[in-house]
Amino acid sequence: MSQTPKQFAERSVPTSADVARLAGVSRATVSYVLNNTASVRISEPTRRRVREAAEELGYVPHAAARSLRAGHTRMVLLPATSVPHGPQFHRFFHELQWALRRLDYTVVQYGSVGLDGDDAARAWAELRPVAVVSLGEVGLTPHGVDILKRSGAKAVISLAPRRVEGAHCLVMDQREVGGCAVTHLVQRGRRAIGVVMPREPGLEHFAQPRYEGAVRAAADTGARVEPLPLAYDEESAAALAARWHGLGLDAVYAFNDDYAMLLMRALQDERIDIPGQTAVIGADDLLLGRLLRPRLSTVHIDMVTGRLLAELVDQAVRTPDDRPRDHELMGARAVHREST
Amino acid sequence: MSQTPKQFAERSVPTSADVARLAGVSRATVSYVLNNTASVRISEPTRRRVREAAEELGYVPHAAARSLRAGHTRMVLLPATSVPHGPQFHRFFHELQWALRRLDYTVVQYGSVGLDGDDAARAWAELRPVAVVSLGEVGLTPHGVDILKRSGAKAVISLAPRRVEGAHCLVMDQREVGGCAVTHLVQRGRRAIGVVMPREPGLEHFAQPRYEGAVRAAADTGARVEPLPLAYDEESAAALAARWHGLGLDAVYAFNDDYAMLLMRALQDERIDIPGQTAVIGADDLLLGRLLRPRLSTVHIDMVTGRLLAELVDQAVRTPDDRPRDHELMGARAVHREST
Repeated sequence: MSQTPKQFAERSVPTSADVARLAGVSRATVSYVLNNTASVRISEPTRRRVREAAEELGYVPHAAARSLRAGHTRMVLLPATSVPHGPQFHRFFHELQWALRRLDYTVVQYGSVGLDGDDAARAWAELRPVAVVSLGEVGLTPHGVDILKRSGAKAVISLAPRRVEGAHCLVMDQREVGGCAVTHLVQRGRRAIGVVMPREPGLEHFAQPRYEGAVRAAADTGARVEPLPLAYDEESAAALAARWHGLGLDAVYAFNDDYAMLLMRALQDERIDIPGQTAVIGADDLLLGRLLRPRLSTVHIDMVTGRLLAELVDQAVRTPDDRPRDHELMGARAVHREST
Repeated sequence: MSQTPKQFAERSVPTSADVARLAGVSRATVSYVLNNTASVRISEPTRRRVREAAEELGYVPHAAARSLRAGHTRMVLLPATSVPHGPQFHRFFHELQWALRRLDYTVVQYGSVGLDGDDAARAWAELRPVAVVSLGEVGLTPHGVDILKRSGAKAVISLAPRRVEGAHCLVMDQREVGGCAVTHLVQRGRRAIGVVMPREPGLEHFAQPRYEGAVRAAADTGARVEPLPLAYDEESAAALAARWHGLGLDAVYAFNDDYAMLLMRALQDERIDIPGQTAVIGADDLLLGRLLRPRLSTVHIDMVTGRLLAELVDQAVRTPDDRPRDHELMGARAVHREST
């Protein structure tokens, strides 16, 4: 590995023709072997010769060339999220990648930071994915779905709070989360309920529908619901806790377990008894909620499994002419512990 | 949007030739306009006509075709990590994407779940990225770097605990983190120090060098260091806490703040006084550490900023013949709070 920069600059990128020459076979044979084409019978010694020649020359197939020949790729594109996600999402995503790879797809996450709506769809379409799984942040529109399908995508799947025309929609109705939390608090006798609205960008796509669900659940119960903007830092939590008595609240749904931990600490520092004076409930059912004292009540969210989603992607790709269907795949239930 | 499946199946993917025909220009002009080629002067009305025709037909350029013409892409490939990462990493990653996009690169994260070492490098090379930024998990080897460079990558950058021949290395020496933690504990008079080793897969790439750093820092101080395997669940923490007295430890470096929170709770449930009987220090300087009582001491880690890394990628791409350089970019320092 002691080559000089000059030597490196002079080396050129090896091609499949170089491999064919070295192995003494045709370029087509090289392509069949290295792309694992199952439909063509090639002897094991020939396969070995091709692989060894490729290895010696440092040749790897060009995915772009292959996709141009095939007219599409086996690429499933997942727009990378800009929202920080917890361990639950990470597990889901890992499982999804794993399951798609087993089905012979390549999973690519595309950073769409700074792109919105149809611009994002256009950027995704340039990569000619066979399927796009949108995690619902970038505002996929029916027009965006159309751009993707016209560029050759066989399936567009949206995991989002709302339906998008033309896409298979896994509707994750975030309103259910807020609804569950408030119903739990009302059942435990609370009547003046604050709902934490995180100030962090990106989270409004979750916070707004959760708040709507909270309002809907409180309707006709005699309970009132009040939005409480909160940044994820100690100062913001301390400021909110300092004016807590003036708010006249007896409960708070704190968006998720992280915000609940932050607010609970600030309330306890103000000597507000939990749950005596104020009940606190989070969401996500994280381990940390069980480590708090009092133990944190939470909303447990059942997400679609990565494996199930992978099967749905594959099904949608293999039957692109089927009318897109909606799937209700999120369940939510309150988990009662000590803080409510 | 009420087309029948049949109608959809009959539509074909529009090409740049279709756009050229509709706009009354050459295919080359379509390519210049839609790929924003700055070196060719085209009038604004013509540009508008091309864009409108593309919009009407639903045409977007094909990144693969463009990259075949150019011989390489503007794609910077980041292998997607299989390790759950916290908010600090997420911020870094977001910033990196943003900065690279401003420099006109496209950032693609590639899921290399289930691939290892040179197999991963080969899979990355198929996408013909202009640069690869490896986050050090998949065991990039000098041979892997060679595969990537021979396939046309102009720069391979590795953020990893150890150097890789042929790559620009941003050495994040994890040993420093463990070293900082143990030096802090020794300075505070502790002599029998446990080091948490997470059982979760993927974390061993961090845990092992951190442990080595801990051992090195304890050498010649009279302190002993003992590895403590721990899974991230309450049962594992309770089992460790139950046999705590038998271990004869007066301090623990708990890998990071999450594991520290888990273990601290279990120790407190066993009525072990912190820091009186056992000092606890984490790492990562998360907000949650400040919310615990006692407040958690931690190791603050200075990571390279996304912006700085983006500039380094761009520099490396523009001067591919320069000899790869190493950059020491991680700093670590202990933050003393109440738990030590």
